[in-house]
Amino acid sequence: MDEIKEECGVFGIYHNPEAASLAYFGLHALQHRGQEGAGIATADGKDIYCFKGRGLLASVFEQGGLAGLKGGNSVGHVRYGTEGGNEIENVQPMVARAQIGSIAVVHNGQIANAGELRCELENNGSIFRGTSDSEIILHMIQRRKGPLLRKIQEACKKLDGAFSFLILTEKNLYAIRDKNGLRPLSIARLNEGYCLSSESCAFEAIGAKFLRDVRPGEVIKLSEKGMESSFYTEETQHRICAMEYIYFSRPDSNVEGLNVHTVRKKCGKIMAMKDRDGLAADIVVGVPDSSLSAAMGYSEASGLPCEMGLIKNRYVGRTFIKPTQRLRDMGVKMKLSVNVSVVAGKRVVLIDDSLVRGTTSRYIVQLLKEASAKEVHLRIASPAIIYPCFYGVDTSTQQELISYRLSSAALREYVGADSLRFLSLEDLQRACGGNCCFACFNGEYVTPLYCHGEKSK
Amino acid sequence: MDEIKEECGVFGIYHNPEAASLAYFGLHALQHRGQEGAGIATADGKDIYCFKGRGLLASVFEQGGLAGLKGGNSVGHVRYGTEGGNEIENVQPMVARAQIGSIAVVHNGQIANAGELRCELENNGSIFRGTSDSEIILHMIQRRKGPLLRKIQEACKKLDGAFSFLILTEKNLYAIRDKNGLRPLSIARLNEGYCLSSESCAFEAIGAKFLRDVRPGEVIKLSEKGMESSFYTEETQHRICAMEYIYFSRPDSNVEGLNVHTVRKKCGKIMAMKDRDGLAADIVVGVPDSSLSAAMGYSEASGLPCEMGLIKNRYVGRTFIKPTQRLRDMGVKMKLSVNVSVVAGKRVVLIDDSLVRGTTSRYIVQLLKEASAKEVHLRIASPAIIYPCFYGVDTSTQQELISYRLSSAALREYVGADSLRFLSLEDLQRACGGNCCFACFNGEYVTPLYCHGEKSK
Amino acid sequence: MDEIKEECGVFGIYHNPEAASLAYFGLHALQHRGQEGAGIATADGKDIYCFKGRGLLASVFEQGGLAGLKGGNSVGHVRYGTEGGNEIENVQPMVARAQIGSIAVVHNGQIANAGELRCELENNGSIFRGTSDSEIILHMIQRRKGPLLRKIQEACKKLDGAFSFLILTEKNLYAIRDKNGLRPLSIARLNEGYCLSSESCAFEAIGAKFLRDVRPGEVIKLSEKGMESSFYTEETQHRICAMEYIYFSRPDSNVEGLNVHTVRKKCGKIMAMKDRDGLAADIVVGVPDSSLSAAMGYSEASGLPCEMGLIKNRYVGRTFIKPTQRLRDMGVKMKLSVNVSVVAGKRVVLIDDSLVRGTTSRYIVQLLKEASAKEVHLRIASPAIIYPCFYGVDTSTQQELISYRLSSAALREYVGADSLRFLSLEDLQRACGGNCCFACFNGEYVTPLYCHGEKSK
Amino acid sequence: MDEIKEECGVFGIYHNPEAASLAYFGLHALQHRGQEGAGIATADGKDIYCFKGRGLLASVFEQGGLAGLKGGNSVGHVRYGTEGGNEIENVQPMVARAQIGSIAVVHNGQIANAGELRCELENNGSIFRGTSDSEIILHMIQRRKGPLLRKIQEACKKLDGAFSFLILTEKNLYAIRDKNGLRPLSIARLNEGYCLSSESCAFEAIGAKFLRDVRPGEVIKLSEKGMESSFYTEETQHRICAMEYIYFSRPDSNVEGLNVHTVRKKCGKIMAMKDRDGLAADIVVGVPDSSLSAAMGYSEASGLPCEMGLIKNRYVGRTFIKPTQRLRDMGVKMKLSVNVSVVAGKRVVLIDDSLVRGTTSRYIVQLLKEASAKEVHLRIASPAIIYPCFYGVDTSTQQELISYRLSSAALREYVGADSLRFLSLEDLQRACGGNCCFACFNGEYVTPLYCHGEKSK
Repeated sequence: MDEIKEECGVFGIYHNPEAASLAYFGLHALQHRGQEGAGIATADGKDIYCFKGRGLLASVFEQGGLAGLKGGNSVGHVRYGTEGGNEIENVQPMVARAQIGSIAVVHNGQIANAGELRCELENNGSIFRGTSDSEIILHMIQRRKGPLLRKIQEACKKLDGAFSFLILTEKNLYAIRDKNGLRPLSIARLNEGYCLSSESCAFEAIGAKFLRDVRPGEVIKLSEKGMESSFYTEETQHRICAMEYIYFSRPDSNVEGLNVHTVRKKCGKIMAMKDRDGLAADIVVGVPDSSLSAAMGYSEASGLPCEMGLIKNRYVGRTFIKPTQRLRDMGVKMKLSVNVSVVAGKRVVLIDDSLVRGTTSRYIVQLLKEASAKEVHLRIASPAIIYPCFYGVDTSTQQELISYRLSSAALREYVGADSLRFLSLEDLQRACGGNCCFACFNGEYVTPLYCHGEKSK
Repeated sequence: MDEIKEECGVFGIYHNPEAASLAYFGLHALQHRGQEGAGIATADGKDIYCFKGRGLLASVFEQGGLAGLKGGNSVGHVRYGTEGGNEIENVQPMVARAQIGSIAVVHNGQIANAGELRCELENNGSIFRGTSDSEIILHMIQRRKGPLLRKIQEACKKLDGAFSFLILTEKNLYAIRDKNGLRPLSIARLNEGYCLSSESCAFEAIGAKFLRDVRPGEVIKLSEKGMESSFYTEETQHRICAMEYIYFSRPDSNVEGLNVHTVRKKCGKIMAMKDRDGLAADIVVGVPDSSLSAAMGYSEASGLPCEMGLIKNRYVGRTFIKPTQRLRDMGVKMKLSVNVSVVAGKRVVLIDDSLVRGTTSRYIVQLLKEASAKEVHLRIASPAIIYPCFYGVDTSTQQELISYRLSSAALREYVGADSLRFLSLEDLQRACGGNCCFACFNGEYVTPLYCHGEKSK
Repeated sequence: MDEIKEECGVFGIYHNPEAASLAYFGLHALQHRGQEGAGIATADGKDIYCFKGRGLLASVFEQGGLAGLKGGNSVGHVRYGTEGGNEIENVQPMVARAQIGSIAVVHNGQIANAGELRCELENNGSIFRGTSDSEIILHMIQRRKGPLLRKIQEACKKLDGAFSFLILTEKNLYAIRDKNGLRPLSIARLNEGYCLSSESCAFEAIGAKFLRDVRPGEVIKLSEKGMESSFYTEETQHRICAMEYIYFSRPDSNVEGLNVHTVRKKCGKIMAMKDRDGLAADIVVGVPDSSLSAAMGYSEASGLPCEMGLIKNRYVGRTFIKPTQRLRDMGVKMKLSVNVSVVAGKRVVLIDDSLVRGTTSRYIVQLLKEASAKEVHLRIASPAIIYPCFYGVDTSTQQELISYRLSSAALREYVGADSLRFLSLEDLQRACGGNCCFACFNGEYVTPLYCHGEKSK
Repeated sequence: MDEIKEECGVFGIYHNPEAASLAYFGLHALQHRGQEGAGIATADGKDIYCFKGRGLLASVFEQGGLAGLKGGNSVGHVRYGTEGGNEIENVQPMVARAQIGSIAVVHNGQIANAGELRCELENNGSIFRGTSDSEIILHMIQRRKGPLLRKIQEACKKLDGAFSFLILTEKNLYAIRDKNGLRPLSIARLNEGYCLSSESCAFEAIGAKFLRDVRPGEVIKLSEKGMESSFYTEETQHRICAMEYIYFSRPDSNVEGLNVHTVRKKCGKIMAMKDRDGLAADIVVGVPDSSLSAAMGYSEASGLPCEMGLIKNRYVGRTFIKPTQRLRDMGVKMKLSVNVSVVAGKRVVLIDDSLVRGTTSRYIVQLLKEASAKEVHLRIASPAIIYPCFYGVDTSTQQELISYRLSSAALREYVGADSLRFLSLEDLQRACGGNCCFACFNGEYVTPLYCHGEKSK
């Protein structure tokens, strides 16, 4: 399937007797951000304990891994892993055991100058065990001198790109966000302590009270002295990744103050208003789950009824059969099926959140046509993606981006829709505000770019 | 949680080289009807092969159980098990190995006179290995004389209650539905063969073409001669369980010719029309997933915006922690969370599909209030349940039915809503037609009732 | 491999608050008697609870199955299953749920007239769910009239063949042994209660005090009144299966008063004495584990040193690889390897406990020759098997018995040994006493034989 | 239990199309050297692939981990892990991913100056992810300059202690053994390629032909040029750990040219000769499995019969029950039971291979006494351990060594034996040759010792 993949979620607890259990619950609420690996590290003032593994959170911990995670502070991680990079070495938290004290790091994002930094570190004798950027962060920090806070700040100055990470020491907890604020990170109060999360929905899950987003360039230190804030640079700006609104975050999360469901619904409404005069249709159908909010918005603004024309199977479907092509097709149908009675003979406005390689949209349009939909008008609730992302969104190379390769007409033909329209960038900005990174739509990258090991710009 | 439990799903394939694999895919589409057990039996003309186990379909078969299931015909089952009755003896298919030939049965429903029949059978020397009604069916059939078709017909005459079952022999496949048609069962064509399923959504999943519903009282025999139909009685009527529309079936299934999503949406619309003059509210929120269709309908008819105010976590959440009360509360929150930004300060019309014991509704209303909803108006998209069901719906004793125990006002107070209204029975009939069993709403049972081993009426 | 398969083990506890746990420990000590399935049923005076599954005991219960097994009485079973018969329906305990009270049965043995009884039962309307003899026992008992003790006694009169079984009711526990005492069964005291086991080694494991063997034809009833003994027939004799000494039982078990290790060692000694003048050899090597006792005995009587020339790998070896022939050979080597340094250049007396199809012996002789053993003299610590067994030993058809097919010289050549000798039947009788069933050696069956559904003799 | 723990096993394949499968089979034969973790890395000329996990080899790979291990060269590891150090970070192979090329290391042994090296490395900016010595080796090598062979040689010069390790690069394979040869490592031919193993028994398992032991101080490089040998130092000596003979290695392995079973048997014989005049006894019983060879030897030399008085259960016993003390005792009995009939009334010579903390011996003597053994004469087939080991044997602190704490008489009383005798060091030397490290017996360490981060001697 042609899904954009989420790029991990981080979660942390400072000062709570149930730090490991709370991290488990918090990560469960972030599970949509990564299903290939999960782990939790805790600290009890004397040592750091860590348990992690490949797969879903619940299966990683089903054999009792929580039992050994002692202490009142914790950090946790759910991981999305690219193919080939899903070795156990890349699963987080990453722990460095040093005689001056151990630290554990969990990280969400992508370091744009990872290749350069890695080269430099290796030349100075560092060893890398996996391919994860988190390992670079560990090295960058440990190589600096002075107290840990200063080491973190010095390290961050060298990091270009998107990063929100947590550092757990034997006694304290640090939260850091890159100077453009590309990846989300928020802080909440939980009784006498604190809680950190990639998304605010995890605060709700454990009853923590949202305090504020961590600020671009900010380094928060949680210690016996409470919460102390500092900045590793003064050159900051708010450039949260627009994809957090469009696809990644859960509808009940607030990202930089805006509710995700509400932003998506607004996108749907705006699209409907643009279609107002031209589009004669019978029903609106959203691709579950991430496009349902936009479909509701489109329905509301257009007056067309919103229908459940596509159904997502809630159960994990595994194919144990060495499949013929026929059985392989069924494997795909295990995930998504069309509600034939609802769409047959209808002119359908099909709402999808985004379009990357085009294969999923093409497949869904075909499903609807086979189910006798009279017309299928595809509306993408975000602009065409024509630039690659270097900040953690797995949209691969520019050549794979179908909006880059094909003209609008050719694209419509490829997906098989009767009409196709994207949300314009301006309209997206109306919905989610201008303070986002829109680089995948307009090529305006917020950091220098690197290419073959050299800064290209 | 206060959920009505689904009462199993059955699936069958006649004449297809991939009978076992197709049964696996078909059952996956019926997984919502039962998660406590699953199994498949196949036949290759010479013998019957069976593999089954406790738990979800995918986990039952993950160790390779499909491999030994040879042959071109199959029957399968997903099981919902009441507590205590979830022993392996009750997991289906149930196979009887006899020297005159083996048979396998899968069954959906509940035999109202099970106690009487069991007594009689035991007095005649029969042995029961579990507590499942399917075992009674096996015995009832095997005790008759003559060819199998006649044995089945004779046995069915003795069975009161709800049943849709499939019988697999070494060569043939039989499909039977009770004379009131209480439980659903449909037949489809699949290439040169046939396919049977509790719900039509499973036909879509494997590319079979819907033919028709099996008729009340009908016995279909699939053999080398093709499909032959007969009836075990002439006293038949259409009384499909209304709960199939309200709660059990998947939105993309058609039950007795009506699409489930469409019926639910219609219920929502009717409720909105009844509320038209009196209800001042801001938004409509459905309880995911089964109430979303009704919420869409309510929104459409009332003009109030439909919002995603409650979010269901798509991932299975297990609690490995010996929980304090506090952690136990979180365990519940792992499943359902409220979208605070959407509901805060709003007057919410909360749509739920049904109300049995009232505990879930009460919990959700409380969640919304804690999230600062200004008002919560609970609308139940079905009538008040005041009679117990003897046909397979697990609504327990009459005393547990909160609508039986409490007056309308007391019930509103109990759940904590600002107003509470049920769909009237007449309105439900408008939505799903009059040919349903509404016994749980009006006490008009379609079979004799039995009590302490005696027929009570 | 050419192993004789064990035919199940049974275990029971009467009157102990830890009845389920003790059954678990007891069955663990009997695990060598069957690895394909395991289960435990308990009773608490009101109901019977049962948990069972395919595979090793520890893996069946690793998900917590012991938790629900309430009550002070229990029966348990470890199962050896023939191919094709390993369906869950055949796993024991088998429970019959009847309104007059439930019973659970665990059984070790083989009913010689199973086919006849089954036919008769089916003709009278009984249904069989699997292919196990235990199910026949259940039916035979339930079909009788009167109090349970009488029903058991009447049923046993109809059963020809080998059986030791336990019956658990909601309140009591029964232990039954066939009139020839073919399969072992013993009783022990455990505090205020009792304990029953196929082998005495399981008593040691839980600290129970051996009382005596259950007698041929005896029915023991354990109830509030204590232990009551009766006999279902007066025509009894002691004919324990000789294979219990030769192969099945654990060396630390006593069977009918004789220690198994000691009997085996004696067999080895006798063989050595027979060889005394003729055999010039350097070392004695036993095939681990079951032939080590005999090897010790041979060494002691011959004066030849006993050496560890063959090593059995203690860890379960699974082959996950789709194997080439080469890798398949290694799969066999995962289980047994030769100690090259010990056997190279030596004249080896190789002791094996028995020889059925000859394939294992042939393989081991070949291993030793490849390891440069100068000569290999194979000594089988039991007589040649030339008759099939109808009492539970899986030696298959007479045609498969290599000693039936081949002359002594041809057999020696087939296995590749420099000489081959069996223990004579007289010598075996000297070691284990004359009160055994030796039918597989001499064809003197202790019950009528049945063939194609008719008694043949 | 009071067992000495094995310290890991390593295995490698150079140039074979089935490198991963062969490593799996080879490691299975080494499973006795470590059960807490296992892993395999392979190389195909372009990249390194690795799969590993906690637990037994078969369970680590049961989900299909072998499938992705491409290439013709491999290294593998089975791990024994001390408590607390069993995090996934310590499981081997350890892979370093560097832009100049990746390497994987598997290691058996213990670096005596690990603390010093670690400090030094950390001061220079290295990060450690776990507590394993293998990680130090990785860093030591990567920090050197020049071609890999030189880097390895330079690194080894800095390492004090016991180490046998393999280095896999994308193209080549290196095998290294410390200059004292403390840990075993051998090389064999396998068709056109090579095979490396901690023990020779693994060569047998895959049909490889033993070539020779890797020499103390030797670095073997396997590449397209074949096998090239060099030495990292000229100051070498043969000081294989005596415990390899006494306890660690499999009886069918040859260590430095001597067969392990044969050495153990010789120890038993010598002990018997020392006892000749003084000891009146009836039978000899060895503690299974590692003391059976010595028991055979004692029996042979003394003329006393060797009996199977103790039985080790071959099946893994897990306790799922929250145990009372009574049930906990049974948990221990699940592993080892006494053959009462054999020992009752007898004067038993009990042979155990070694005695560390004394708890196991005490427990076994007690078991025998409870089983009515008249006398128990404990003979330890190795000298008293009075010095701690710094080379990989987990004998803990000197205070825990019971032979250090107690006088001979007090020790006999503590274990409850009627007499107690150890093998003398001289006699051990007679059995296994003088070229061993006997430091745990005589304190003559072969490397400098380190204490609190400083070289102490």
